Parts: sequence; structure tokens; C-alpha cells
Amino acid sequence: METVAERARYPEFRIRVPVMRILLVGAGGVGSAFCAIAARRDFFEQVVVCDYDADRARHAAEAVGDARFVSAQVDATSADAVAALVREHAITHVMNAVDPRFVMPIFNGALAGGADYLDMAMSLSHRHPEQPYELTGVKLGDEQFAAGEDWAAAGRLALVGIGVEPGLSDVFARYAADHLFSDIDELGTRDGSNLTVEGYDFAPSFSIWTTIEECLNPPVIWEADRGWFVTEPFSEPEVFDFPDGIGPVECVNVEHEEVLLMPRWVKCKRATFKYGLGTEFIDVLKTLHKLGLDRTEKVRVGSDKGQVEVSPRDVVAACLPNPATLGPKMRGKTCAGLWVTGTGKDGEPRSTYLYHVVDNEWSMAEYGHQCVVWQTAINPVVALELLANGTWSGTGVLGPEAFDAVPFLELLTAYGSPWGVKELN
Amino acid sequence: METVAERARYPEFRIRVPVMRILLVGAGGVGSAFCAIAARRDFFEQVVVCDYDADRARHAAEAVGDARFVSAQVDATSADAVAALVREHAITHVMNAVDPRFVMPIFNGALAGGADYLDMAMSLSHRHPEQPYELTGVKLGDEQFAAGEDWAAAGRLALVGIGVEPGLSDVFARYAADHLFSDIDELGTRDGSNLTVEGYDFAPSFSIWTTIEECLNPPVIWEADRGWFVTEPFSEPEVFDFPDGIGPVECVNVEHEEVLLMPRWVKCKRATFKYGLGTEFIDVLKTLHKLGLDRTEKVRVGSDKGQVEVSPRDVVAACLPNPATLGPKMRGKTCAGLWVTGTGKDGEPRSTYLYHVVDNEWSMAEYGHQCVVWQTAINPVVALELLANGTWSGTGVLGPEAFDAVPFLELLTAYGSPWGVKELN
Repeated sequence: METVAERARYPEFRIRVPVMRILLVGAGGVGSAFCAIAARRDFFEQVVVCDYDADRARHAAEAVGDARFVSAQVDATSADAVAALVREHAITHVMNAVDPRFVMPIFNGALAGGADYLDMAMSLSHRHPEQPYELTGVKLGDEQFAAGEDWAAAGRLALVGIGVEPGLSDVFARYAADHLFSDIDELGTRDGSNLTVEGYDFAPSFSIWTTIEECLNPPVIWEADRGWFVTEPFSEPEVFDFPDGIGPVECVNVEHEEVLLMPRWVKCKRATFKYGLGTEFIDVLKTLHKLGLDRTEKVRVGSDKGQVEVSPRDVVAACLPNPATLGPKMRGKTCAGLWVTGTGKDGEPRSTYLYHVVDNEWSMAEYGHQCVVWQTAINPVVALELLANGTWSGTGVLGPEAFDAVPFLELLTAYGSPWGVKELN
Repeated sequence: METVAERARYPEFRIRVPVMRILLVGAGGVGSAFCAIAARRDFFEQVVVCDYDADRARHAAEAVGDARFVSAQVDATSADAVAALVREHAITHVMNAVDPRFVMPIFNGALAGGADYLDMAMSLSHRHPEQPYELTGVKLGDEQFAAGEDWAAAGRLALVGIGVEPGLSDVFARYAADHLFSDIDELGTRDGSNLTVEGYDFAPSFSIWTTIEECLNPPVIWEADRGWFVTEPFSEPEVFDFPDGIGPVECVNVEHEEVLLMPRWVKCKRATFKYGLGTEFIDVLKTLHKLGLDRTEKVRVGSDKGQVEVSPRDVVAACLPNPATLGPKMRGKTCAGLWVTGTGKDGEPRSTYLYHVVDNEWSMAEYGHQCVVWQTAINPVVALELLANGTWSGTGVLGPEAFDAVPFLELLTAYGSPWGVKELN
């Protein structure tokens, strides 16, 4: 049982009671898994689960059978609405678990309401108007980092990108720099799975909205002598051999937060993110793009309410099964990890993959949540526990790399979900 | 100049004036091209161009600068609305130029109003509930042929499938049987093009709604000893070498009216339709199907008017450029034709492709309409002229094969758009 006695951050509460009060925004797949994982821990006093859909929020809160979980309705497009909930429930930490369109109002609402903030995806990018596949425009997280001084001045922490990827991958980067490498050439996040979904020709195991956003935006790369730059989608295809029986999967460059986060705190020559989409998924995304069905700009179409404007990407999502409901039909494992190359502490060349694998059968049996959302949700729970007990602390807008990796990895293992290391040469 | 003197069908009008009065339903790409072609001929007295969108109808009617063309608004889902227009404008022939969802109300409205009827696509099929890729369910045109006796009893003609395909291809079948072959093995419609559209990754030159309907329905085949049966979509891929510089294109079986029409009037052992979709288009259609985006069943999605129900296929169409607007950016030729194999009149084996090619550059320069819609629209104009001058006549529900092919092919040539014959062995 952690207490606040060790912490400097809430000096007014120097009593031995749990004081963390969390506002969980979003009761979708990841939000629901967050509740199931957090319910087994006692580092917080309350979780207020809120969602645009009040019934969904209530269902997620009630599902864990724990009186510390209550629910509320929220419009996540409104920073004022988020701030009002923070004040109403004396929230100390806002946990953002909705899709990245809503990052900025939730992030701003947390600060306005007087709470710390965590998310698992950062504010969205906007491509360069003239050279969209060469130069960066507005980068992932730029809007959040621009507010860094405001957060620091308020003595508040925004811990951004603390899901599994970004999140655990960033913790691995810090761990590799501190404990495994004397010099790092590349920090290469590599994500892959061998998941299949029974009865579906095509059923993504994660939000298609976010997947399209990630995969069709120009992928970003960082190099020490060039800074951030972007390429065409699906660039630099490579087959990566994932551990634990997953095997080889075709990976391509994808825009992802790690590339924006890692170089800010960890010294390296290059940072990349490659997603093991597989050939079929890549073809689907290319086709959606070719037909303009990836667009969020609305098109005019007939409906039961006459001519309306809808976002094609929303329609694609509406045609596919809800990933949160697919758990019982999924088979296989998902792997998140970081491939680090460079010079080891012994001065020899080193190529190491730090990874975390979740078997869907295990996460379904143990938590009732499919492996991809479960693997995303466990990391912010671990981080919140480290913040609650004062092991991690800070102010400003910080990535996971800004904190000591060891206690995180130890607590993750203590949660029953160990990580692995594989030497690649 | 044709007159009614030679005609038996309207004996009450035995005076030397043109009496054909056409209700053109649909002012889209094909409807507009129909107007441009018909405006050069004098076999009719009036064309009432109607559309759900009154502005579009008015625009199509005014574009030809011919006082014989007027416009009206119509709801093509209502047979009563069609019948009312027939009576109001003393229509003799209803020309259906909208997508095949609206065949039945227009077809029924024409008969109810007391007019003859022509279309370029037949009533839709419904797949077999248990064996959708083996047995036929409701076939293309079944609903129309079921009304054959009513039309015959009323002394009215419904000439179905008189575009280019079906239409000209069916005329070729009759011509081959009458003049080129003593015995026919296969009547194989083959459609292909080398069209490209500048500035677009993907821009179908024909209604995507209809293309999806055709290509993702189980393709139908007829064999003398088996009758009609269906296969999986995209079956029996074959590379067909199209004439006039188009060259080889990958063709696959597609559900099409010719297979339902030809065996009713022309003796053969097998009837097929293969569409030269090309590999890229086939991949796009397979992906749309895999994601459920080909569906017409509505899905629930957010819009500017709140939650609404929209048809995913309508959204796909709304994301793509309007094919009728692509003419100036298109390059290349489109080819419609019939590959006939069997025994020639001389008793020798014969393999002949009868075809009609339109160069987009020519149709744009000459008529201001892109080649695919122009090639579709010219055939019903020719047919209407043959009906107006009494060369073609009949009652009941009839396909183009039921009429003598020679005057049709002669008049098509006289319109400035000749056809070709190529021996394949």
C-alpha cells in the first residue's frame, strides 16, 4: 500500500491515505481494460469513468464491481467540460483514453481544472503544405510541447505517450541507454503480431480510425544530423522476426510518437517506428487512400435524414466490427518492442530487441480484455502507481523517457506481465 | 426523315409528322450524352428530360440548345410519378437512364401510363439464399420478364438492355447467328479499355455503384445443358487482346444482362460476360468487399445532422469523382464487343470478335461527352429511331436479339460510329 508520506508533490496531504483521484476519459476498449487492471491495485481512491456515451461509461465502471469506480458523461471536445469534471470530483490525474482527435481539449481541460494529465497518443500532426513527404509540418505532440512552460509554471505534470507504443517502447529506450548501451545508433520501435479473428475476412484489432491516421500520414524519422523529416507512407519495408513464436512480419515506417519523444531525452543517431502491418493490411490501407475513404473531410450523401455530411473514415469504422468486441474470436499474440543497435557497455557492437508479448488467450482468460487493448492499458496503470507512490515525479510536458525505467519495468513484471530481451546478433 | 406512314403501331396517327415523344428518366452522364446524340436526329417530336434533381434535368435539356428538349422533376422510385409524367406529356416511349435500382418503378410506370419502354440495364438480381455462388436466385431481368404477358396483352413493347453492353453486344449476337455462324459454341461478351484519367489515382469512368453491383454479385453463366448458374466473383480470369491498339487486359466473369438475354433468342452452347477490369480495379473491388464497403445495407454514423443511417456504397460513390465530369481528363479508347466461337457458314471452325471502339478524344471533340457514357447512350438513340420509323417493332418484354441486327448496325455506322470484325484464328 503506497502512501503520500514520501511525496513532495502534495505536501498538504501528508497523511497515510491514498489520495489519487483519476478522471478516465473514454470508456472504449482501452478505457475498459484500464478499469479491469486498475481495479486490482490500491494506489488510488477513485476513478471517474467518463465518456460521450453515458451508458458506455456506466457499463465500464460497473463491470469491475469496485465501489471506487463511478461514471459520468463528458463531451471530450470541450476543455471546459473536462475542467468542470476535474473540479467536481477533486481529480488529481486526468487519464486520456479516447482517440487522438480529442487530445488538446482534454490536455487543456486538465490544466485548467488543476490536475495532472496522462495520455497514450499525442496531439495530431498536420502535414507540410508544400513538401508533405519530405518536410515535417506540425508534428505529433507539437501542440502539447508548446504548452510545456505553462505546465511547468503551474507545477503540473503532463506525462504524454504512456501506453504501450508510445509508452513501454519509450521506457525501453531509456533502459537501453542507461543499462545496455554506451552508444546508440538506432532506436527502432517494431510492433507486430500473429493475431487472427475467426469469422472475419478483415477485422483490425485496434481502432481503424487511429490506424488510418498513423499509417497514411507521412511517416516521421529522426536523424541526429538531419532532425525530423518525413517520407512517403509505407516506406522502407523490412521483414522483422518477432519473438515468442510470432515469427516474420512485413514492417513499414509509420508516423508514431516514439520518433518524436525518444530523441528529446535519449541520445541516439536515428529513431524510427515500423509497424508490422503485413502485406494484406498495407494493401487495404493503400486502397482506402486511393479511393479517398481515409479522409476525415466530409462528403455529401443521402441518409434516413436526407442529404447529410459524413466523414468517409467514420463510415469505414462503422462498417468494421468494434475491436473491443473481438476478444473472444481472436487468436495469437501481440508484440511491442524496441530494436536498439549500437555499441554495448562492453564496447562491442550490439543489436538487442527489448519486447513485451501478450497472448490473447491469456488476457481474455485473466482480464476479459483482448490483448491489444490490454497491452495498451496496463502501462498507464503502472505509471499512475509510480506517480502515486512518488517513485516518479516531475512537472511540465514529459515523455516516458524522462523517468527512470527500472521501477517501471519492475512494477510491470510485478503486475504479472514480464518483458523480454533478445540479442539479435 | 422517317414518318409514321409506314408504321402499323400507331394507326391513329397516319399522317406524315414525327410523333415519337420520349420521357428520358435520368440526366446523369448517359442521359446527357443521349440528349447530345438525339439532338442531331429528327425522328422524334419531344424529349422530356427528367431527374430527381430538377436543376440537373434542366441543365441537360438546355445544354443541347434544341427546343424539342424540355425538363421536369421526377421521383424515379415512384411508378405513379413516372406514369403521371407519361400522361402529362403524351409520352410514347420512356427511356430509362438511371441506375438499375430504379428499373422496376420506371418499367411499371411506363406500362401504367401507356408508353413503350427502353432501358440499358435490367431489374436487379438477388442471390440464392443457401448456395449463392452455385445456384441462381432471382436473376437479372426476372422481374421484368415476369411481366412479359402484361406488356404483350397491352400491345406495348419493353425493349430491355439496349445500351452498349447489354445492347450492342446482343445485336452482335443476333448478327453472328444470322450471318456469320452455322453453329455457335460460345457467345462471350468481352469489354475492355486502355483509359486513364489524368490527375487521379483512381477514377472509374462509369458509375461505381453499378460497377460494384455488377462485379461483386455472383457472376452468371449459361450453358445449354445446365441452364443458368453462378460462380464466385472474379472467376475464370483470362487475358483478352482488345483491338485498335488497346491490347491485352485481364478479364474476369461478371454478372451481366447479356448472359440472361442472348440464350433466350440465339442458339448457342454457352454464354458468358467478362469484364476487362484489370488487376488494380479487381483488387479495389475485393478490398471494398472485404471491408463491407460495397454494402447497400445502411450503417449508423455521425453527421452534421446527428446520428444517421447511410449506405456504405453511396459513401464510396460520394468519395470518387463524378465519371460524367472526367471526360476532359480521360485518355484512351473503350471497346465493347462479342467474341463468338463455333462453326462458320462455310462449315469451318470460326472464332470472331465483333466490336465497337470509341476514342475518348473523338467523343469529347465531337459531342462533348466521354467515350464510355457516349458509347452507352448512342445505342438507345439508334433503337428509338428504328422503332420510330417502323423498322423495328414488337410487343412484350424483348431483348435486342429479338430484332434484325442489320438495320441497327447500318444506322449505327450512319451515325458516324462504325463497328468492326476481327478474326481470332
